[in-house]
Amino acid sequence: MNLPSSILQEAVDQLAMLPGVGKRSALRYALHLLREDETRVQELVAALVGLKTRLHHCRYCHNVSDTEVCPICASEKRQRGIVCVVENVQDVMAVENTQQYRGLYHVLGGVISPIDGIGVQDLEIASLLRRVETGDPYPVEEVILALPTTMEGDTTNYYLSRQLRPTGVKITTLARGVAVGDSLEYADEVTLGSSIAHRIPFEG
Amino acid sequence: MNLPSSILQEAVDQLAMLPGVGKRSALRYALHLLREDETRVQELVAALVGLKTRLHHCRYCHNVSDTEVCPICASEKRQRGIVCVVENVQDVMAVENTQQYRGLYHVLGGVISPIDGIGVQDLEIASLLRRVETGDPYPVEEVILALPTTMEGDTTNYYLSRQLRPTGVKITTLARGVAVGDSLEYADEVTLGSSIAHRIPFEG
Repeated sequence: MNLPSSILQEAVDQLAMLPGVGKRSALRYALHLLREDETRVQELVAALVGLKTRLHHCRYCHNVSDTEVCPICASEKRQRGIVCVVENVQDVMAVENTQQYRGLYHVLGGVISPIDGIGVQDLEIASLLRRVETGDPYPVEEVILALPTTMEGDTTNYYLSRQLRPTGVKITTLARGVAVGDSLEYADEVTLGSSIAHRIPFEG
Repeated sequence: MNLPSSILQEAVDQLAMLPGVGKRSALRYALHLLREDETRVQELVAALVGLKTRLHHCRYCHNVSDTEVCPICASEKRQRGIVCVVENVQDVMAVENTQQYRGLYHVLGGVISPIDGIGVQDLEIASLLRRVETGDPYPVEEVILALPTTMEGDTTNYYLSRQLRPTGVKITTLARGVAVGDSLEYADEVTLGSSIAHRIPFEG
């Protein structure tokens, strides 16, 4: 794409580095901002800078937070003995949205992936082990491994379970099965197999 | 969507004001930036601020430009007697990409649209008339009306043609017809009718 201005080109190049944004969308965003008031652009810019300068990660669970300890870790209404280990911030939001979980979280910040150069030391694994071993801030009775069912996720689950086992903590993982509303016919065999193997009592 | 941080929420709200960006995409962008280096975010922010502070609009054609007069208006290789009137900056890029046009442009910045409250005075219409009447910066022999074929575009075309007629300048518009590669069967009747009415000599 041949842009008539290097300043516009620079803005498009920068915007196109956002995930899933191509040159064409980036141009649309840039031209939109060009038409906006300067105060509007300043507000956007301040919000983006705030992400890096004002946002904290909770010192216990490493979820994003306005405060040093996030509201979930600080809440007295949560089951503090249960820790759900997830890959990222979005996963916390997904689990919270179910309104089925009342425990705490631990955000790893990724999964072990040698291909991407992500090793154990790049993730919040040491802090998880410390949390379980020392019982700081709260004693942990159960760790739920809720990482994605990819090769990397499985590897990380396995690594964590090996590290956690000596502590004697209870280790569980998410039930996998056919989604609510999905027909058996179109479910993949691994998922359907898991649904059958982990069948539950019928509540009529 | 329930976000764990008001700072993240603010960034998501701001990003979601970009055209075609929903809350979910905005969150994806915000979390991506959160993982990026601070210098990377600073570069993005500087590029966006540059759009409002460093980018010019060409004093003649009102296209975006790094300089006060854009490279197209400044180029001696263009046919300076021909001015193509377009709605916005994207249209200039679209025509330029054809590599079929060697004249100049005039970017109106929109089309007349009473519903959206866009009137003659909100567009670069007076400057177009002045350009044709005074021959500044270059005498104009032909004005090509290349506005969109919507009600608003047609209205604007009509208004411009009425205003330009007294100057005696040649007024043309784009040929409309069935797209190259499209089958007649699926063309709408107005387009196909235009293709027939404005048929051209066969070059065998």
